[in-house]
Amino acid sequence: MPKNNLIIGRQPLMEALKSDKQIDKILLQKNSSGEIINDIRLFAKTKHIPIQFVPVEKLNSLTKTNHQGVVAFTALVNYLNVQEVIDFVVSKGEVPLFILLDGITDVRNIGAIARTALCCGAQTIIIPDKGVGALNEDAMKSSAGALEQINICRVNSLMKTVDELHLNGIKVYASEMTATKKLFNINFTEPCAIIMGGEEKGVYPALMKICDEKFSIPMHKNFESLNVSVATGMILYEAMKQRS
Amino acid sequence: MPKNNLIIGRQPLMEALKSDKQIDKILLQKNSSGEIINDIRLFAKTKHIPIQFVPVEKLNSLTKTNHQGVVAFTALVNYLNVQEVIDFVVSKGEVPLFILLDGITDVRNIGAIARTALCCGAQTIIIPDKGVGALNEDAMKSSAGALEQINICRVNSLMKTVDELHLNGIKVYASEMTATKKLFNINFTEPCAIIMGGEEKGVYPALMKICDEKFSIPMHKNFESLNVSVATGMILYEAMKQRS
Repeated sequence: MPKNNLIIGRQPLMEALKSDKQIDKILLQKNSSGEIINDIRLFAKTKHIPIQFVPVEKLNSLTKTNHQGVVAFTALVNYLNVQEVIDFVVSKGEVPLFILLDGITDVRNIGAIARTALCCGAQTIIIPDKGVGALNEDAMKSSAGALEQINICRVNSLMKTVDELHLNGIKVYASEMTATKKLFNINFTEPCAIIMGGEEKGVYPALMKICDEKFSIPMHKNFESLNVSVATGMILYEAMKQRS
Repeated sequence: MPKNNLIIGRQPLMEALKSDKQIDKILLQKNSSGEIINDIRLFAKTKHIPIQFVPVEKLNSLTKTNHQGVVAFTALVNYLNVQEVIDFVVSKGEVPLFILLDGITDVRNIGAIARTALCCGAQTIIIPDKGVGALNEDAMKSSAGALEQINICRVNSLMKTVDELHLNGIKVYASEMTATKKLFNINFTEPCAIIMGGEEKGVYPALMKICDEKFSIPMHKNFESLNVSVATGMILYEAMKQRS
């Protein structure tokens, strides 16, 4: 029996891509070709859906039906467009407070960040279509339902997204351990977005460069190693306190 | 081959119990009896080491050597005495900031809390000998080394520990969602300890009663569901900010 979040076969996937159905990821058999495969790749690119090329055995392990080298996963969340979300938040009279995730692979951390964001009044989480853990069932579970309630945008370039935020008058901040400016000296009462980087590599340097400001979380000891969801909690607590 | 954190057999365990060796947990075969078993139970009680009664198959799965119904795990952390830790912290000229864990079973959360505590200048984590996740290898890994650097006390009653903290002039606070007093209205500059309860049940009611004060973390929405390690992060950030 196919799992109910799978789309199996070339034509079913093409139909899904042409519809409003949200797709998380497409698996294509390595070296598969043909006109319809080209169309799938084109549509996927336009819609920011990541494609993975996998050996046929991987596809066979997912389904016993004739997959024609094509299996996709429907999304568990409803991905939104960044500009539409900005317009929506502003139209409600709210001041944007967005979170961008860069290189955070642990889905439990992503779930915990979504919970925290919702509790603290952040309206949106923006994730890139590569290099971030999938919003799968484990992420949903860790989020305690938050991933279904908060706005989620998936983009194919965080760099371009920062430009888009800037064009909308939204400042972009990033957390970096070496920054001299401290978290509590950042003004979070204005429209702003915060980039959270992975625990090992931090925020991607080119992305850090185009941020308006970077800050560090003050630390007490020579032990500077916060879990990324805990760090996000501290930042959003500070933002919430300033906004209340 | 026995794993190197196992103590196997009656006499080896008795010797370990009589020495300074720290033991995390003792597994006794169900219905085992005899003078030495009574001695083991007595020593374990005095030293606050939890005992679990298990079927013989469980012990057989841990070791192929003759276990005589007795297997114990040596501790990965060095448990300290509460009064000694208070004296040590005060003698260094520091103001005590302790964390008590009540009913937190997820070892990854315990690890993340230890990291946060160390980063924020909390000196000690106090855990009860029952109802809290084991400080096992997963907890150590999640703590990124923090569990090896922070003081850890294991006690057999958090109620008695709160009394002991009070006798030392340390105020005890607890986080509760319904409390009217907000986190940022608590004075963390004095010697204090904070009880963190499990996400589902919160702090044990009798324990809550003997606290000096309870507070809530301000929340923005009708979604009040923070991960416990994230909540600890917000509290310790507030405490650190007040103390800096």
